[in-house]
Amino acid sequence: MDETETIAAISTPPGRGGVAVVRVSGPAAFAVAARLTGRRVDASLAGRFFHSAFFKVVKEFKESKVVKEFKESKVVNDFKDLKDSKDLNDLKDLKLTGELLDDGLVLVFAAPHSYTGEDVVEFQCHGGSVAPRRVLEACLAAGARLARRGEFTQRAFLNGRLDLSAAEAVIDLIDAKTDRAADDAVARLGGAASAEFEALYAAALDISVRLEHALDFSEDELPGDFADNIARDISSLRSRIAARLATAREGRLLREGALVVLAGPPNVGKSSLLNALLGERRAIVSDTAGTTRDFIEESVEIGGWPVRLVDTAGLRTAGDVIEAEGVGRAEELIAKADLVLSLEEPPGSTKKDDRVLHVLSKCDLHPAVTATRLLPVSAVTGEGLPELRAAIADRLEKLAAKGEEASGADVTTRQKEHLQVAADALARVDVGDLVVAANEARVAAESLGKILGKVYTEDLLESIFSRFCVGK
Amino acid sequence: MDETETIAAISTPPGRGGVAVVRVSGPAAFAVAARLTGRRVDASLAGRFFHSAFFKVVKEFKESKVVKEFKESKVVNDFKDLKDSKDLNDLKDLKLTGELLDDGLVLVFAAPHSYTGEDVVEFQCHGGSVAPRRVLEACLAAGARLARRGEFTQRAFLNGRLDLSAAEAVIDLIDAKTDRAADDAVARLGGAASAEFEALYAAALDISVRLEHALDFSEDELPGDFADNIARDISSLRSRIAARLATAREGRLLREGALVVLAGPPNVGKSSLLNALLGERRAIVSDTAGTTRDFIEESVEIGGWPVRLVDTAGLRTAGDVIEAEGVGRAEELIAKADLVLSLEEPPGSTKKDDRVLHVLSKCDLHPAVTATRLLPVSAVTGEGLPELRAAIADRLEKLAAKGEEASGADVTTRQKEHLQVAADALARVDVGDLVVAANEARVAAESLGKILGKVYTEDLLESIFSRFCVGK
Repeated sequence: MDETETIAAISTPPGRGGVAVVRVSGPAAFAVAARLTGRRVDASLAGRFFHSAFFKVVKEFKESKVVKEFKESKVVNDFKDLKDSKDLNDLKDLKLTGELLDDGLVLVFAAPHSYTGEDVVEFQCHGGSVAPRRVLEACLAAGARLARRGEFTQRAFLNGRLDLSAAEAVIDLIDAKTDRAADDAVARLGGAASAEFEALYAAALDISVRLEHALDFSEDELPGDFADNIARDISSLRSRIAARLATAREGRLLREGALVVLAGPPNVGKSSLLNALLGERRAIVSDTAGTTRDFIEESVEIGGWPVRLVDTAGLRTAGDVIEAEGVGRAEELIAKADLVLSLEEPPGSTKKDDRVLHVLSKCDLHPAVTATRLLPVSAVTGEGLPELRAAIADRLEKLAAKGEEASGADVTTRQKEHLQVAADALARVDVGDLVVAANEARVAAESLGKILGKVYTEDLLESIFSRFCVGK
Repeated sequence: MDETETIAAISTPPGRGGVAVVRVSGPAAFAVAARLTGRRVDASLAGRFFHSAFFKVVKEFKESKVVKEFKESKVVNDFKDLKDSKDLNDLKDLKLTGELLDDGLVLVFAAPHSYTGEDVVEFQCHGGSVAPRRVLEACLAAGARLARRGEFTQRAFLNGRLDLSAAEAVIDLIDAKTDRAADDAVARLGGAASAEFEALYAAALDISVRLEHALDFSEDELPGDFADNIARDISSLRSRIAARLATAREGRLLREGALVVLAGPPNVGKSSLLNALLGERRAIVSDTAGTTRDFIEESVEIGGWPVRLVDTAGLRTAGDVIEAEGVGRAEELIAKADLVLSLEEPPGSTKKDDRVLHVLSKCDLHPAVTATRLLPVSAVTGEGLPELRAAIADRLEKLAAKGEEASGADVTTRQKEHLQVAADALARVDVGDLVVAANEARVAAESLGKILGKVYTEDLLESIFSRFCVGK
């Protein structure tokens, strides 16, 4: 990455909308804004916005009435003047000379007080497909280059504006499908998890440094309690890492959604129940294109949990899927499932599995059945649906809470991997062999350092920021 | 419309994106912002933006640490303080007390210097599906109600911030599919057409007032040249209206797209040519759901013109469609078409019609044919496609230019209707019967007044603003 480059991108989603935002960051941001607006733009405008026409920019910025006005213009300190300067005649006049593209707001941020830590300008233009594209094209012609995915946030990280945990939270918040997932991301965005990760890294670094230092001495020269102290500190650090790892499941449920599989014999009513559960959907429901379309997967929110609801109806199954020799995918799905809704007609199965909710389907046809282990549900009458939703949410809550210690925020998959590498390295430490111990401690410290980005590689940044959309 | 109500909506398109904008307008806009941010917000911040956390708002705004801080807070005049006040500890602290929803920018506009002319606050929050919804919900809980389609722009019109011609240009710009259409909308947005419409209205009003006034006098009391003068002024006004009406076609082509119909016998290669023309599509291409799916319609940009390309392949046709007794839809389509691409295999048709481009399809199979009236095109090899595109653009250019007098901007369908009503009314004026003349002149003036909104009805506003998206 070359930070001398100025980057630009449309930061709002594509599509029909009243407003779009084109963001520009880097040393030439003010110059880009000056070229588009015909006004001088500098740090004295930081924290202010003004209304302006946006002009087409050509590579050779021609001497014109607009350029002349720009050269003669003073730094504008009085916002009211700026606002009042837009009248119809002004625009009509400029149209004749300057190839008017649009008009809108210009927001000015001066380094280091911006999202990226660099000079930043945001153009708020009309929405739709043409206006934002044209403003972006003008920014590119005026000296910016197109930003890569997540490049604004990557620069923010590299400039120390946020740590990697917060950077991940940014995209998790954008991708959040439920309030619960958004709450988790907002907490991490605010640094709720960072202090603990900082402390873990500091502890590992301290152990690593002490061990490296010890290598310079013979065993006799070291304090008598050196090995004991190191072993105690490592043991303490391992416990703390284990505690963080225990919260990883809720994080995954929130970010990726809980996998809930509908299973049961043919014609037991799986598809009907899927439709009934989707019927009152509050969140965005969409077909998720899987690698295969042999089964139906839909996203739905149940009790605040993002749920990936899979109907195995298309799979060749017989009898109770849990017990059946259901081949291939059905088995895989059920093995991976966070929760299985086993649809049954009376009599119910008797197998015990925490991950299975036994549902009596078509209960409108079986009014006499009162099997206590079966949740009676009718997709036709809607009977039992609220109870089923509550039962699903309750099971997911319990799954998530396993081992959780009421932390403010959760552990992402990436963070979990780094924690696990550190835990494994520390487990291999033998204080009887200082060379091995120092090596493993260094591995642990480096891995913990990667969580917040105290230590990072190009690959690590690539793996994080490639998840982003362009424009963030 | 009750202007004492404060309205709120998400102004950016739905979907995945870095940034979303939630707009609030009305007398309670500052109070809404204060409740979400825990800061005092007032007109002294106009033209500034600040970074803030956004909090959940409950109907009964509870006394909490946040509220306490809010009550004690001073009006913040130094933006740098605001920017620096966001540190991780602050947010973590507030999370414990205030139900943090997100964080982002707050833009403050004070009446009348805002888009709507009212107090306006814009929240720029994280994109995606949850964060903007939650910020909007907080705005609604804090006292705003959901805005209707185009209600921000409607308020702007009612508060004299823009005329109806500019209001229409706003949505035309958002919906523009090509640069040419966007240029036209931007010109109208900047008031390029307004001065002329103002003048037409003023002239009609003047004639109407003079005629009304004349009704108070007997014929003998009127100046001898009164009728002649009125007749001359009406004649002049009618010419000017006719000139504006002549530009209406380009406006329609730009906004609705030119209807280009592919016609020809079965297997002549219509579908292949459609696909070939779409192959190099630069603009957004989408299936346009028609009332019937018996024919295929795709949108594509050709030489800057938005084109609705229709393949009549699904229609029952035989021989040269232009000559054939093609029933129903094919005939209708061809009758409505701005341009017909008549695909032929040699020998070519000899009929003459300005609206028809004769295309020799599958020219790779007929290398020997050199019929000058036929444009040789091969969808297989791509031969002749650039020439066909140029020919289409050229024909559309000529169609649009018919009667055009190099006006800065075009006439919309609605404006055309008002112009036509005025023209018809003026044509009925008989200066021999002053009562009829006064009546018709009043009709003409009212109709011209509706173009810019000098005269308007609830129905007129409804017909214009119902085209808008929510949030603009």
